[in-house]
Amino acid sequence: MKVKPMDDRVLIEPVEEESKTPSGIIIPDTAKEKPIVGKVLAVGTDEDLRENIKEGDRVLFAKYGGEDITVDGKDLKIIQRSDILAIIED
Amino acid sequence: MKVKPMDDRVLIEPVEEESKTPSGIIIPDTAKEKPIVGKVLAVGTDEDLRENIKEGDRVLFAKYGGEDITVDGKDLKIIQRSDILAIIED
Amino acid sequence: MKVKPMDDRVLIEPVEEESKTPSGIIIPDTAKEKPIVGKVLAVGTDEDLRENIKEGDRVLFAKYGGEDITVDGKDLKIIQRSDILAIIED
Amino acid sequence: MKVKPMDDRVLIEPVEEESKTPSGIIIPDTAKEKPIVGKVLAVGTDEDLRENIKEGDRVLFAKYGGEDITVDGKDLKIIQRSDILAIIED
Amino acid sequence: MKVKPMDDRVLIEPVEEESKTPSGIIIPDTAKEKPIVGKVLAVGTDEDLRENIKEGDRVLFAKYGGEDITVDGKDLKIIQRSDILAIIED
Amino acid sequence: MKVKPMDDRVLIEPVEEESKTPSGIIIPDTAKEKPIVGKVLAVGTDEDLRENIKEGDRVLFAKYGGEDITVDGKDLKIIQRSDILAIIED
Amino acid sequence: MKVKPMDDRVLIEPVEEESKTPSGIIIPDTAKEKPIVGKVLAVGTDEDLRENIKEGDRVLFAKYGGEDITVDGKDLKIIQRSDILAIIED
Repeated sequence: MKVKPMDDRVLIEPVEEESKTPSGIIIPDTAKEKPIVGKVLAVGTDEDLRENIKEGDRVLFAKYGGEDITVDGKDLKIIQRSDILAIIED
Repeated sequence: MKVKPMDDRVLIEPVEEESKTPSGIIIPDTAKEKPIVGKVLAVGTDEDLRENIKEGDRVLFAKYGGEDITVDGKDLKIIQRSDILAIIED
Repeated sequence: MKVKPMDDRVLIEPVEEESKTPSGIIIPDTAKEKPIVGKVLAVGTDEDLRENIKEGDRVLFAKYGGEDITVDGKDLKIIQRSDILAIIED
Repeated sequence: MKVKPMDDRVLIEPVEEESKTPSGIIIPDTAKEKPIVGKVLAVGTDEDLRENIKEGDRVLFAKYGGEDITVDGKDLKIIQRSDILAIIED
Repeated sequence: MKVKPMDDRVLIEPVEEESKTPSGIIIPDTAKEKPIVGKVLAVGTDEDLRENIKEGDRVLFAKYGGEDITVDGKDLKIIQRSDILAIIED
Repeated sequence: MKVKPMDDRVLIEPVEEESKTPSGIIIPDTAKEKPIVGKVLAVGTDEDLRENIKEGDRVLFAKYGGEDITVDGKDLKIIQRSDILAIIED
Repeated sequence: MKVKPMDDRVLIEPVEEESKTPSGIIIPDTAKEKPIVGKVLAVGTDEDLRENIKEGDRVLFAKYGGEDITVDGKDLKIIQRSDILAIIED
């Protein structure tokens, strides 16, 4: 089953927050809305977006952004470009 | 009787939320505004929209978006493009 | 007496809500702001609007939109394009 | 003394609301903000506006819109284009 | 000492409200925010503004608009174009 | 140490409010948000801004605007173009 | 591990607020939201931004802006261009 995000959206699998991510980013689950790390599973149809973001990229995104969905038992997020803060490279 | 959506709108038949959709998307009717799955019955007059969305597409859309109408006894929704999150393909 | 709507507005004669419209659309007068069906009596001066909407069209429009006026004893509405959801064809 | 409205504004002499206007429009002074009928005394400097509205036109405009002024003892209104709903022709 | 307004602003010397202005405009000091009459002392740097407004023009402007300043003992106002309703000519 | 304002911002040294400025502008410290006079120390990188505002200009700006910083013991302000009301010339 | 900011964002290492920065800027930790000084570690993909801001620049930015993240034990901020007030040069 494929979820193809519309326009400038991206489908993301969030990484477990508490544990230290392989890339060294600690996102303590503090009260404060810390951004989250996630893996890009699918990129929207917007051309400019597709030039900047690829499937497999690891991105940092604003915690409050996007919509939650569950696909094949996995909790995923559909995020808009404006909520993507950075791309993380090891 | 045909309902032809105006401009960038789409006519959608929402899928029953509770049951697991054939495509594996579970949309539990939790308090939180989870997005909904639905089938596209008609696409608006906006050209760019018609290039991205087709009749018969199954889409994921924001629950709070759009207007409810009942046509020939069926509860349908008229949604704007900005509330369409993704297209789902099996 | 002719009422000629300005710019992107449309003059509409709303259809009685409760009764089932010939086109099968039931618009129960529930608390929730269900859209309304109406007949287009006059179309504004905006060229693009005039390509998409014609006098005599039956349209579905957002209940809360537009301004109420009474002309020759008839309760009519002046609606902006953004409040027109769809055109209905039998 | 001449009042020359700026940009997209129009100077209007509102018609008495209660009485039935010669053109058949009844604007009962209900609580609800019914639009008002008035005669155009002067049109602003905006070119596009001047192509659509002429001095002497009778227009229907949103009651809450514009600014009240009194000129030579007459209560007038300065209205922006966006508050003009329609032109009325007998 | 010269005050040169920036961009689309205008420096205005408001006229005493209560008295009937030579041009016949009565601006009673009612509770309601009636517009004010004033004389243009300086026009901003915006070219389009300078084509529409000249030093010495008498203008009608929204009471709540602009900033109050006192220059050489005179209470003046710096107003933006969007708060200028009309030019008054005797 | 040089502070180079970004984009359409300007670095300003506010003038003491209470005293009558050499240019005759009295800015009493009333409760009401009276604009302030200040000297331009640096102009941002925006080209159009640099054509209209020069280092050394004395400007009148909205009191509530901008950010307060202290540089080498001096209390300065970083203001955006939209908060600059006028340039003052003696 | 590299954090590559998206679009018009910048990755910044804030300077300790209390101490007087080498460049003479004192940012007392008063209640009032004083701007903060920081060093640019990475610049987003936006071309115009990259012409105005370089890695290694010391910038003054609005305290309330951006998102907090911790990378390899360091507390950093991801800021948007609109929150960058000035570049500081010694």
